[in-house]
Amino acid sequence: MTLSAKDVEGIIYNGLPAAGDAGVVVESVGGNRARVRFPFRGSMIRPGGTVSGPTMMSLADTAMYAAILGRLGGLEMAVTQNLNINFLSKPGQVDLIGEAEIIRLGRRSAVMEVRIYSEGSDEMVAHVTGTYALPGGKTG
Amino acid sequence: MTLSAKDVEGIIYNGLPAAGDAGVVVESVGGNRARVRFPFRGSMIRPGGTVSGPTMMSLADTAMYAAILGRLGGLEMAVTQNLNINFLSKPGQVDLIGEAEIIRLGRRSAVMEVRIYSEGSDEMVAHVTGTYALPGGKTG
Amino acid sequence: MTLSAKDVEGIIYNGLPAAGDAGVVVESVGGNRARVRFPFRGSMIRPGGTVSGPTMMSLADTAMYAAILGRLGGLEMAVTQNLNINFLSKPGQVDLIGEAEIIRLGRRSAVMEVRIYSEGSDEMVAHVTGTYALPGGKTG
Amino acid sequence: MTLSAKDVEGIIYNGLPAAGDAGVVVESVGGNRARVRFPFRGSMIRPGGTVSGPTMMSLADTAMYAAILGRLGGLEMAVTQNLNINFLSKPGQVDLIGEAEIIRLGRRSAVMEVRIYSEGSDEMVAHVTGTYALPGGKTG
Repeated sequence: MTLSAKDVEGIIYNGLPAAGDAGVVVESVGGNRARVRFPFRGSMIRPGGTVSGPTMMSLADTAMYAAILGRLGGLEMAVTQNLNINFLSKPGQVDLIGEAEIIRLGRRSAVMEVRIYSEGSDEMVAHVTGTYALPGGKTG
Repeated sequence: MTLSAKDVEGIIYNGLPAAGDAGVVVESVGGNRARVRFPFRGSMIRPGGTVSGPTMMSLADTAMYAAILGRLGGLEMAVTQNLNINFLSKPGQVDLIGEAEIIRLGRRSAVMEVRIYSEGSDEMVAHVTGTYALPGGKTG
Repeated sequence: MTLSAKDVEGIIYNGLPAAGDAGVVVESVGGNRARVRFPFRGSMIRPGGTVSGPTMMSLADTAMYAAILGRLGGLEMAVTQNLNINFLSKPGQVDLIGEAEIIRLGRRSAVMEVRIYSEGSDEMVAHVTGTYALPGGKTG
Repeated sequence: MTLSAKDVEGIIYNGLPAAGDAGVVVESVGGNRARVRFPFRGSMIRPGGTVSGPTMMSLADTAMYAAILGRLGGLEMAVTQNLNINFLSKPGQVDLIGEAEIIRLGRRSAVMEVRIYSEGSDEMVAHVTGTYALPGGKTG
């Protein structure tokens, strides 16, 4: 089964109603990749006028989950095991884009990389690696 | 200058109004430690009925920030450089507690460890290490 | 089956002859813990007169492996999935001690923490977390 | 000042005589990148017939250091602050190649990514991110 970006977005909205409230957009899924947008909102801001770390971690986690769903199809129970984030530069007060790629798909787990950008800039604002556990072996 | 848990909570609420909306409680600060509570809310839930990863990452980041403020006093501009989280067990649908400890305080950065628990259980649900950059050198 | 520190050391020497050449000592195993010593050697030094990062990473990996063997018994095929290390302070030119603890033992993986010290000092020189995959489910 | 791959290799050999004994080759440096080869040796092997984790961590650290030296020139005192490695697939019993890239160069620190391959294969065997502290601010 192959899921479209819209299908994946629907699964995420069903599971995480807060994602729908926040207007999260799954822009694309395909191959080992997914691209997810977090529209800018004032509640993302932290002291210093920059987007908060937890906002970027949440985007990274959502983008990894979208990549898994897009690759394996409807595996709602996949769960994050490990996430490591390096904050690189101060994001602007604009939308954030997360580009996830599965760099290793095993039977029991997937390792992913996410690069986070501010809309309209090609300077990376954060770099993330993470691992998802795949329940009962992958289905795709 | 020494800040009380209430002082630190006030600084966090000023900087992150969302923390106030969420009812975040800084329960204690002192020495190299801080203890922070995230009251349970339905919006924390993810598929499978467990508390979402980003909720735990946000708690970890807040607890590290509280430990820095408690130790150094009013250093609002400290920023997270790196955060690494391992998810260990499924949290209950109850309050989450984050216990942060500064394990290395340098002139330019601090390394911290956070242990996250579900209220009423002594099984750790997540383990976090992280680094904060200290602007212009520490003041405390 | 329960393995002694000497048993665990023997398994490590069999698998990694270099460990024997280096005089690695498994000082204790038990419960969820292991303590491993790397005797000081000139080849550990890096520019600046400090012990090299790879030496500390190797100690961390060995201590995690010892903790797994001590807890589960003879599981030679356990492999490291992830290791995250923060370097905290400059080690002295003395033996290095790694204290590993299993903080989560699942069916398919174990999460561990390692604290590294220089002999005779209680200031931590490095802090490590890591994950081991357990082949075919744990046996202990 | 710009250093050649051979210059960088010389600095590494001077600082870490063990690198010379092991025949480590700095194949290229330039821009934000460096490529380093660890020739295969029997002492790299761990149980299961695969190359040991510490060997890959050592390669990653060396490749990051080479990238820093190539970019900034002769900054021998740069030290690793954090290293995070995900092991992806079993390396062959052949040379290991580490390709490092500086993804963020700040005044006080650099964040890097390293991709590790077995000679002759394009399947990544390990993925690493790491941070180096730059003494006294960068010179390049």
